[in-house]
Amino acid sequence: MAHKFPEVQGGGSLIIAWQIRGKKVVVVGGGEVAAGRILHCLNADAMVTVVAPASGLNPEVAHRVSQKQVQHIDRLFEPADIDSADMVLTAVDDPEASTRIWKLCKEKHIPVNVADVPPECDFYFGSVHRDGPLQIMVSTNGKGPRLAHAIRKYIAKFLPKQAGAAIDSVGELRVKLRRIAPGPEEGPKRMAWMTKVSDAYSFEELCSLTDEDVDNLLRFYTPGNVPPLDILFSMRDNPDLSKIDVFDGSFGFSIGV
Amino acid sequence: MAHKFPEVQGGGSLIIAWQIRGKKVVVVGGGEVAAGRILHCLNADAMVTVVAPASGLNPEVAHRVSQKQVQHIDRLFEPADIDSADMVLTAVDDPEASTRIWKLCKEKHIPVNVADVPPECDFYFGSVHRDGPLQIMVSTNGKGPRLAHAIRKYIAKFLPKQAGAAIDSVGELRVKLRRIAPGPEEGPKRMAWMTKVSDAYSFEELCSLTDEDVDNLLRFYTPGNVPPLDILFSMRDNPDLSKIDVFDGSFGFSIGV
Repeated sequence: MAHKFPEVQGGGSLIIAWQIRGKKVVVVGGGEVAAGRILHCLNADAMVTVVAPASGLNPEVAHRVSQKQVQHIDRLFEPADIDSADMVLTAVDDPEASTRIWKLCKEKHIPVNVADVPPECDFYFGSVHRDGPLQIMVSTNGKGPRLAHAIRKYIAKFLPKQAGAAIDSVGELRVKLRRIAPGPEEGPKRMAWMTKVSDAYSFEELCSLTDEDVDNLLRFYTPGNVPPLDILFSMRDNPDLSKIDVFDGSFGFSIGV
Repeated sequence: MAHKFPEVQGGGSLIIAWQIRGKKVVVVGGGEVAAGRILHCLNADAMVTVVAPASGLNPEVAHRVSQKQVQHIDRLFEPADIDSADMVLTAVDDPEASTRIWKLCKEKHIPVNVADVPPECDFYFGSVHRDGPLQIMVSTNGKGPRLAHAIRKYIAKFLPKQAGAAIDSVGELRVKLRRIAPGPEEGPKRMAWMTKVSDAYSFEELCSLTDEDVDNLLRFYTPGNVPPLDILFSMRDNPDLSKIDVFDGSFGFSIGV
């Protein structure tokens, strides 16, 4: 029986999508590494406070401060800075200060990352590809940060251009479906049909769906079918077809004649 | 000046590689979702405790219990179960119990994920590709879990077969480099050369390097060069070449004659 379950492959990390919308993240330091951390946090809608003397801010961090994208405490770190923090990220060239901050965070149970000091990190960062709702994070588990960056670029090259839009389309399909079949009693049918849709099309195919396709696709919900992609594409700009409501699942009818 | 810095793209998550080696993770529930969570945690070397009546364990969870890969508390959840937990994951069909656990974790500042209840999650899971030291996590930020799975498979299909091994090779190169050039005074030169290596080869090229190539590559450290890939490949199984120690950076010498 044992062989049918996945083998444990130790040595990895638990890769998770941390939710920091509206949460207070304190970034100690204002250099290049801090700039990267700040952008990651802003992309996740955090309220970011940067603690660093103005004289030491890198141009990107100074830009975020001047645009009021982050709060700025213009001096060196003081313990009270993290009093109400939900997360702390330090990126300063001062190992002793870093260790003090690490210990303080541990006392207060605040998740913390001390750049370049793995033992003082509750979590590591990786290289992240972003395309709308899609986020792909590459971690080499500390073996090669530059390589993580290269792999991220490699993946970005191969991903369909509409990857993020496809996810939005599927999200939109789910929302519209709930609008045309709102009842809770429809729940299982909605879920079953969405699963059918996911199984019927490959990721590349989903990436090729337009808003019009999504609307046309919804017409197959009532009979509970999912059409082959060429049928769906044939429905584009086909006003006559829009009157057809006999989708019997055989898809044997002529399209566009 | 503003245009030269990356624009903030809100709406994402902070994707991080959480470190749970040797940490106590309590999983409440023993169904299919729990099984997936447990595997994620074991792959990151956590000490996992599953709280669920034995009668309700899914076969995979029962297997992990019988193999002693996890600890098992054979009853429904009790608050004391999370007393020393570093992380709590619940996957039970009982919204009230889930909410009680969520509140308890918030009081104790323990990171928690309540399956299928986004507002009661400090973090979400995604679909993870694993190849040795390489982990690639796909998140659709809740828009389409099945789609995340499809994208993960799509990426896996395009990744070079040796992706994980390539990361190990680069890690190995760094370790061996430190052995042949150990002094701290060599630090900047080591870092500069490793950067040169990363920049000289694409990810696909790095994936094609053998252990022998890595050893041969190290011979270019002293003169501070990085050879074109064809030169490196020409050095394979070439015992005469191993006596050559005049890499002047021009690479104009004949290989294998």
